[in-house]
Amino acid sequence: MSGSRVRFLKGHGTGNDFVVLPDHELELTAELARALCDRRTGLGADGVLRVAPSADGDGWYMDHRNADGSTAEMCGNGLRLFARYLVDSGRASAGSEQRIGTRSGLRRAVVGSDGSVRVEMGPARLGPASVAVVGDDSFTGTAVSMGNPHLVCLIEVPVASLDLHRPPVVDAASFPEGVNVEFGNVGVLDGADRQVTMRVHERGVGETQACGTGACALAATVLGGAHGIVAVDQPGGRVLVDVADDGCWLTGPAVVVATGELDPAWLSAALS
Amino acid sequence: MSGSRVRFLKGHGTGNDFVVLPDHELELTAELARALCDRRTGLGADGVLRVAPSADGDGWYMDHRNADGSTAEMCGNGLRLFARYLVDSGRASAGSEQRIGTRSGLRRAVVGSDGSVRVEMGPARLGPASVAVVGDDSFTGTAVSMGNPHLVCLIEVPVASLDLHRPPVVDAASFPEGVNVEFGNVGVLDGADRQVTMRVHERGVGETQACGTGACALAATVLGGAHGIVAVDQPGGRVLVDVADDGCWLTGPAVVVATGELDPAWLSAALS
Repeated sequence: MSGSRVRFLKGHGTGNDFVVLPDHELELTAELARALCDRRTGLGADGVLRVAPSADGDGWYMDHRNADGSTAEMCGNGLRLFARYLVDSGRASAGSEQRIGTRSGLRRAVVGSDGSVRVEMGPARLGPASVAVVGDDSFTGTAVSMGNPHLVCLIEVPVASLDLHRPPVVDAASFPEGVNVEFGNVGVLDGADRQVTMRVHERGVGETQACGTGACALAATVLGGAHGIVAVDQPGGRVLVDVADDGCWLTGPAVVVATGELDPAWLSAALS
Repeated sequence: MSGSRVRFLKGHGTGNDFVVLPDHELELTAELARALCDRRTGLGADGVLRVAPSADGDGWYMDHRNADGSTAEMCGNGLRLFARYLVDSGRASAGSEQRIGTRSGLRRAVVGSDGSVRVEMGPARLGPASVAVVGDDSFTGTAVSMGNPHLVCLIEVPVASLDLHRPPVVDAASFPEGVNVEFGNVGVLDGADRQVTMRVHERGVGETQACGTGACALAATVLGGAHGIVAVDQPGGRVLVDVADDGCWLTGPAVVVATGELDPAWLSAALS
């Protein structure tokens, strides 16, 4: 592959940014993901999404690696950009339900005519109470599983005042594989009109601009097991979470910044 | 311009990365530079280099803004990438001396057949001794002007051990406009064979992977006013500094990562 032209797309969903590789014959190795995601010597991104044919040949699979080269779990922000790319490139139609393969199984997605994308995030499973300590403050929250582990703390202290440069301290026995910790200030919780301001610390990453599974975990906690729609305002922007019979759905923007081609010599060096 | 296609190139010199805009009719505003350089919602870079015709119409001018939107002084790493772009795009020839306009005046550049680029950095003017304090350690160095201010400290403590998360404390009266502070460990200083390992803290930025004017200031200090060539190893890679009759010359790599087009809707939003 090193001599041929490899196209890419750079984009983001609520500030969570990705390089999309449509040339699905290219193998997405850990080395290539690290080289592409390097923010100085590569294109720079949180992860790479390779467009691969699904195993049954009847759709598309999101092959996804993180910036550190590891294979990635489901990511709502990445899935929105991926679904938009499939529409922009003529592989799928706006307004129609797509079924996209991910490492967490098939997920449905609908690209709206306004550019927002609605994606299926799976069910939120509420667990027991647990505690997160930030500096001198201790906050009681709710453990939530979205497939990956979360601890949602709805707090009175303004989330903007928290120092999240260091990971919140949690009960290691409750979260043996680590945990994403969400802090939320409930703004409005009145009938159908619900809004929460959120910040998130992602395990192994640090504070991020937005976390799709985190927004779903937070919405499910706010609703306490009931169905409904919650607007979640994160540093990277607003998403809407719909907690429904068939699990959580996340609606938010998917922004294309640029498209282009990797330099062949750069790619050759990255693959060697 | 917002409706038309705008091409770009992304590349770096020793880890100092830039977006190059060849469409010189596009005005490089502070807002556009900030949007392009945003590492989450843009392409991400330390700065933007716009290819503009020179005032006399007989060459090219490097219109340069930093990631914060400010207009930039001379930058050896950026100038190397800019000179390489002029050759790659057929505007100049490899091996020939180019004269490129910058905010610091005309600078000469030669793109080598091996991909390295040699650029004129102007004279280094050695000044008085001064002190930089890092943590509990105080280091005596030499003030050097490359047009912009430097303080070069040749030290015994391994530069890798320094904590440069915070700016070194310097004598504010000596550096009223701030100062870039270079720390160097002299490896070899034997006849024509000279090597220094360097780290740099740039004013208003923090530690960077490489600083072209800093490498020149360091080489001139090592040579104590004499002429010669010094290999300077920075975190972003090696450059060679030639201190000669006609000032300092910097030779180092210029790497093209990718080329492409900005998304028209993204550009329109960035310019609005």
